[in-house]
Amino acid sequence: MPKPKLRDATDALVRMTKTTICGTDLHILKGDLPTVAVGRILGHEGIGVIEEVGTGVSRFHKGDHVLISCITACGKCEYCRRGIPSHCEQGGWILGKTIDGTQAEFVRIPFADTSLYSIPNDADKDAMVMLSDILPTGYECGVLNGAVKPGDTVAIIGAGPVGLAALLTTQFFAPANLIVIDLDDNRLEVAKKFDATAVINSTDGKAVGKVMAMTSGKGVDVAIEAVGMAETFGLCQEIIGAGGHIANIGVHGASVTLHLEKLWSQNITITTRLVDAVTTPLLLKTVMAGRLQPKQLITHHFTLGDIINAYDTFGNAGREHALKVILTND
Amino acid sequence: MPKPKLRDATDALVRMTKTTICGTDLHILKGDLPTVAVGRILGHEGIGVIEEVGTGVSRFHKGDHVLISCITACGKCEYCRRGIPSHCEQGGWILGKTIDGTQAEFVRIPFADTSLYSIPNDADKDAMVMLSDILPTGYECGVLNGAVKPGDTVAIIGAGPVGLAALLTTQFFAPANLIVIDLDDNRLEVAKKFDATAVINSTDGKAVGKVMAMTSGKGVDVAIEAVGMAETFGLCQEIIGAGGHIANIGVHGASVTLHLEKLWSQNITITTRLVDAVTTPLLLKTVMAGRLQPKQLITHHFTLGDIINAYDTFGNAGREHALKVILTND
Amino acid sequence: MPKPKLRDATDALVRMTKTTICGTDLHILKGDLPTVAVGRILGHEGIGVIEEVGTGVSRFHKGDHVLISCITACGKCEYCRRGIPSHCEQGGWILGKTIDGTQAEFVRIPFADTSLYSIPNDADKDAMVMLSDILPTGYECGVLNGAVKPGDTVAIIGAGPVGLAALLTTQFFAPANLIVIDLDDNRLEVAKKFDATAVINSTDGKAVGKVMAMTSGKGVDVAIEAVGMAETFGLCQEIIGAGGHIANIGVHGASVTLHLEKLWSQNITITTRLVDAVTTPLLLKTVMAGRLQPKQLITHHFTLGDIINAYDTFGNAGREHALKVILTND
Amino acid sequence: MPKPKLRDATDALVRMTKTTICGTDLHILKGDLPTVAVGRILGHEGIGVIEEVGTGVSRFHKGDHVLISCITACGKCEYCRRGIPSHCEQGGWILGKTIDGTQAEFVRIPFADTSLYSIPNDADKDAMVMLSDILPTGYECGVLNGAVKPGDTVAIIGAGPVGLAALLTTQFFAPANLIVIDLDDNRLEVAKKFDATAVINSTDGKAVGKVMAMTSGKGVDVAIEAVGMAETFGLCQEIIGAGGHIANIGVHGASVTLHLEKLWSQNITITTRLVDAVTTPLLLKTVMAGRLQPKQLITHHFTLGDIINAYDTFGNAGREHALKVILTND
Repeated sequence: MPKPKLRDATDALVRMTKTTICGTDLHILKGDLPTVAVGRILGHEGIGVIEEVGTGVSRFHKGDHVLISCITACGKCEYCRRGIPSHCEQGGWILGKTIDGTQAEFVRIPFADTSLYSIPNDADKDAMVMLSDILPTGYECGVLNGAVKPGDTVAIIGAGPVGLAALLTTQFFAPANLIVIDLDDNRLEVAKKFDATAVINSTDGKAVGKVMAMTSGKGVDVAIEAVGMAETFGLCQEIIGAGGHIANIGVHGASVTLHLEKLWSQNITITTRLVDAVTTPLLLKTVMAGRLQPKQLITHHFTLGDIINAYDTFGNAGREHALKVILTND
Repeated sequence: MPKPKLRDATDALVRMTKTTICGTDLHILKGDLPTVAVGRILGHEGIGVIEEVGTGVSRFHKGDHVLISCITACGKCEYCRRGIPSHCEQGGWILGKTIDGTQAEFVRIPFADTSLYSIPNDADKDAMVMLSDILPTGYECGVLNGAVKPGDTVAIIGAGPVGLAALLTTQFFAPANLIVIDLDDNRLEVAKKFDATAVINSTDGKAVGKVMAMTSGKGVDVAIEAVGMAETFGLCQEIIGAGGHIANIGVHGASVTLHLEKLWSQNITITTRLVDAVTTPLLLKTVMAGRLQPKQLITHHFTLGDIINAYDTFGNAGREHALKVILTND
Repeated sequence: MPKPKLRDATDALVRMTKTTICGTDLHILKGDLPTVAVGRILGHEGIGVIEEVGTGVSRFHKGDHVLISCITACGKCEYCRRGIPSHCEQGGWILGKTIDGTQAEFVRIPFADTSLYSIPNDADKDAMVMLSDILPTGYECGVLNGAVKPGDTVAIIGAGPVGLAALLTTQFFAPANLIVIDLDDNRLEVAKKFDATAVINSTDGKAVGKVMAMTSGKGVDVAIEAVGMAETFGLCQEIIGAGGHIANIGVHGASVTLHLEKLWSQNITITTRLVDAVTTPLLLKTVMAGRLQPKQLITHHFTLGDIINAYDTFGNAGREHALKVILTND
Repeated sequence: MPKPKLRDATDALVRMTKTTICGTDLHILKGDLPTVAVGRILGHEGIGVIEEVGTGVSRFHKGDHVLISCITACGKCEYCRRGIPSHCEQGGWILGKTIDGTQAEFVRIPFADTSLYSIPNDADKDAMVMLSDILPTGYECGVLNGAVKPGDTVAIIGAGPVGLAALLTTQFFAPANLIVIDLDDNRLEVAKKFDATAVINSTDGKAVGKVMAMTSGKGVDVAIEAVGMAETFGLCQEIIGAGGHIANIGVHGASVTLHLEKLWSQNITITTRLVDAVTTPLLLKTVMAGRLQPKQLITHHFTLGDIINAYDTFGNAGREHALKVILTND
């Protein structure tokens, strides 16, 4: 691949040092997002070193170690100012989708001043990669949108990387009960290690009954959907208690049934969100303070040159017991 | 009908002076709520004079003029303490549903201290009746749940009494644009009088396009659903802008389709709520201050003895140009 | 004065069309802010036309009609991202203080993309000038920080331009009672025209008793301090009710006494704020929608060449019955 | 002492099993609260067993194990409904102040249904005593009013029982840095055990400089005042960063100086609060879930008969290394 060049004055060119693979990359490869051009370099996560900056970049310089946000933010449009740069008029999720991404030796980052973060010298580099997307996604779309409060009973549906990221960051708010539901016993074991207070394998179709029993029939305060299927969104509707929140993280490919004939009177809040990654500075502080250990999400390491194997491992996550993989550019 | 008697120490017996009819009363009469016993006295709205109080009632006395809340609140259970007495363990919406209601000469009100409000001497009595249900419903389920902010563009789907109550109380928060959508030109005329900035008759199926044109293609900040049908809830999904709120007020009899394949990434909040009527004191203050004129919602007056005609008028609202009717017990 | 030049790529040069004088300009002239260099051009408010933009400015072009924010925001630093650009690392309140201001034919505006706003074609130009500082100040420091809610009783201490701006924008939230307190009967007359529900001339030292009588001894929900003196801040402490908010807007030159021996148990919130002017887009929408008429604040018009007389009038506001003056650059 | 009797139908008579001593009890004994009648039984904390209930009590029965709230709440008045029962028209802090308190064999609890909480069978009884006052006080007045957020830098001034209660519950919100300041090295050692990330002995008068150094000169996000003196409140003003919160918990006997000449432009929020104890159910859940260990606050045990020695120990807390003492009624 030819080395990319700066295009606009606000661009930075970053030499990648570490990147990773996201579930959405698999979707793109399968053709689920047909708008992604053939030949597009994938990837919207990672860290690197500034190689060059445009004349309009003031906060970063050649040689700086930076964290790349999955969300590109112009910092000026109505949406950026409202705090939802996921809908930035010129940015949003564009890396590895409408422009070349981070699974390469170099990447061009538009609006660098508002789309990159400085990495502290003593930071664990692998941990930093988790701050590009997976942790802000779990935290913003799941935990903040779910409005988790101390003492709450929270159910997380789906123990993949993003569900586990929600599990880790839900604990910022001291819930009393943290129930994780999945079909894969290995992932549920991981959830237990991440301090889930209860895990449920829903293969037998009895998850609803189990949750209702655990909550004296009241249902949960917060249900976080981290799968993206009609069945799991339906499960959330069945276990949510009066006054509760359903926070959708999952990427859905089809419509779902919303049981308003039951829920209209249940004082429920349902939220959706494409991550804005506006909490990255906050999450970085909690990582540096040792309150969050994102490295726990990393199961495999590869070199960037070995990316085919990395995709194979990540694409067969169940067989490989894979969560997040790190690709290092040596 | 025999005069009801006090049953519990926390009961009050109220002699009704004015009551009204709600859309849900029509549903009950049609048999849509089969759990309502035959012979049940309907009605969950109205004002009256205290005839007698139990020994456990401390805030009201014989002769007091009171406003009856549609929601009966014990004031002690987990839900009452959380501020959602709509789900009170012993109360909630029970009047005219599981116990006899207000369309009678007398009504027994359980938990009187926390389910009645004093009426100021100089209050307009007809206006007070609107505070039992319709105004708190529009305000809590529509306006507060919709999180209307100054400068917002708000669409209200349905210009029946509850949609109009939302229209009146949305103006507490100085929205810039207030679009009302309905199938009935007469009701849209009323909406204009109530300061809607635009009205759309959606009979031609072009409402979505019109709203998007009005909002430069961005969609609205808040969509308030005040009908309770799949089509109108669907309309809300089509016109909602990124970061927007859909506040459902409508009573739905069937499930609806939720287009998560589009909305998962749109940072949307959807809320449902059975009115809690916790804002009645606040609304009472705004009425007494002249900031809210609920009498505007009243189109017809009957005596309580003439209730059959009142139901006929209210049940044929389109033909009769009826919004709320007042039944007076002389 | 020589025409200023662009200095940084993110600068814009604006030809002023209208500006105004702020109370802080008077303070600077009196020498109260000794850090302001002699010869500094004053003024941090106004509208104009873009004369030239730097290469880093993307949202504005020569000929655009723009509103100048009193707060210069880089849009990238920690404080800008937290929504408090008043503490921007490179900006904040610098216009007419540490760099030349708007009371001139031309002004250089740093960080133009995030410190200017487009003016709609059909906007009233005089009204726009009020959006640079006075209205965001009253709204953000007084109304938002005071957390005014529908039904509240609000007292505004000081009926100068900023107190009146708070009076106008408090009505975005439908308070039930709006009490304005001042020493000047003329200004209290203006307050009445701006829909104060009660006015008190506090010359006789009986304002506290009057407010407590109006509130049945409970005190007010919100007290907005718009003067900046120990006495008026003290008055706020005497009239605030349990659970209430004291929102300070006034610029204080000396410390005040805080009666914690009384207030420690009164569940009070006290706020201070240098305006961030982040609500200017919202306020602009409400002006364009006709919900806010900022022109009401303007009492006098001058040409920019007649600025000496303008300062004389504004500096003798009591004698001249002056609120805001408009200086037009013909 | 004669056994007290029920007075009102909503009363419960509780046989005390465990109680404790609060700093305010010492104040009363010294005569600082002259309104407290001579001979008044002190104490507003503790647990016990219901001996008898009035006819108006529905949620508790003879034999129930209950936690006594330091705040008596009628559950019906304006203040109770607004969520600030500390200002309940008939209740508030009355136990051990205007009515006999809990440092006795029996205590009469007014409004029992809304002033007592059920104790789960498997609860640690000593821990429960901490939920009457000290933990809700630290949590509501310090942590919630301070609006602690994940990643924040929080300073707690005063490492007495209430400061330490704030230290424990601040961790519900994952602050990055938790600085505790006191004059007593022993208490600072305890603070370290309770996971303070830094402790400062302020005897040398250098605390401000140390905090500013720790925060790169920016100051803290939240300062919690848990002492109640002018000097400590002054310290909070010196270390608070722009946009920060000062949450006062301390009981102040005199006014303090508020440096508005500096703070007017610093976007600061200052709060005061008499504990409302509305978070007791939430705190109980976190204790039962093992997320909060209030027993850590208990240093000494006595029998109720040995109360003189208990007061001596608690009154000489520095010498005795005492935090909270438990008095057991055998």
